[in-house]
Amino acid sequence: MKFYDCSTAPSPRQVRMFIAEKGLSDEIETIEVNLREAEQLGDAFRAINPYCTVPVLETDDGARMFSTAGCCRYLEEAYPEPPLMGRTAAEKAVIADLEWRMEIDGFLAVSEALRNSAPGLKDRALTGPDNYAQIPKLAARGQQRVQRYFGTLDAILEGRDYVAGENFSIADITAFCAVSFANRVKIETPDTAVNVRRWFAAVSARPSTTV
Amino acid sequence: MKFYDCSTAPSPRQVRMFIAEKGLSDEIETIEVNLREAEQLGDAFRAINPYCTVPVLETDDGARMFSTAGCCRYLEEAYPEPPLMGRTAAEKAVIADLEWRMEIDGFLAVSEALRNSAPGLKDRALTGPDNYAQIPKLAARGQQRVQRYFGTLDAILEGRDYVAGENFSIADITAFCAVSFANRVKIETPDTAVNVRRWFAAVSARPSTTV
Repeated sequence: MKFYDCSTAPSPRQVRMFIAEKGLSDEIETIEVNLREAEQLGDAFRAINPYCTVPVLETDDGARMFSTAGCCRYLEEAYPEPPLMGRTAAEKAVIADLEWRMEIDGFLAVSEALRNSAPGLKDRALTGPDNYAQIPKLAARGQQRVQRYFGTLDAILEGRDYVAGENFSIADITAFCAVSFANRVKIETPDTAVNVRRWFAAVSARPSTTV
Repeated sequence: MKFYDCSTAPSPRQVRMFIAEKGLSDEIETIEVNLREAEQLGDAFRAINPYCTVPVLETDDGARMFSTAGCCRYLEEAYPEPPLMGRTAAEKAVIADLEWRMEIDGFLAVSEALRNSAPGLKDRALTGPDNYAQIPKLAARGQQRVQRYFGTLDAILEGRDYVAGENFSIADITAFCAVSFANRVKIETPDTAVNVRRWFAAVSARPSTTV
């Protein structure tokens, strides 16, 4: 199995954490893609992934997944223990539901804020092969959405150790990567989000956050 | 089980089709939510779903899912036949990967185009409890993205009956709802997208598209 990664990028970090939580870090060949030099847009990488993004997971049979959803689904099904997507039907559904919310309301909101404002991402408002101009109003909307996301996540975490309840899951990985990503681009977690702060500190102690 | 639906809205349609493909339409109580009269923002519905959106699926044990991802995951796990999310690990991963792409590059792109331009959706550029002003440049970007999505989908469907290969899956449901949604808001499928047109006609013949 091969994992196309970029150690400084937030999206493949979700898969890297997932791999580490499964105890598979030493079993998967990791290939670093240099996003800073736009390697993902070059012909060699485009032949691997026409969508020009990381992460990519390639199975030994040659199947390729180009999204965190696809990569993590493969790892969960092929390596069920420890489960990161739930055990029962209801658990699996609640985790899928929360993972989707963390991705859309959290991760994509931070991306919206960053990619529509950072000078180094001019015309790169979306990832992928096509250029899109930055929209300053969309950067402002992204900032608003991230603030609301902190409130949403804080409410979810009230009285809970983890996003989906008692057990650590992929929803925590996505939320952790979203909050880290926000903090890295100077959108700080509000002091009032006490549950987010408690949970973030607890998840930060996991070895998978430092791989 | 209860399904909170809106028969004219594109998002719950995905779950409605999924339910029909599972043969469960007669077994699930469907509750119509009147989005036209903003019932989703009223106190009664907010007590059911604080995110103020449909679809919502409620299990007999009271667990609630507020996203198509969560609703469909529950139905797949609780009613495995016929499988709509794959059988083997690789199939499940490829379908999850494509489903994600149909959602983000297709469905969300159409939403971006519509919700940032329709006069009836003023200040409702995003679904949910919070108002967001329309951004005309984002409507234009949505239009561009939908055109590119037709190209992406056409390439995926080259030489294939269905989005993920030989078998009908959730990726077809999401793609079908995205293309229908685009067509309904007057973004027509280009004549050059011959694979999309062939596939769309074939899927349109399924009874699940008329429920």
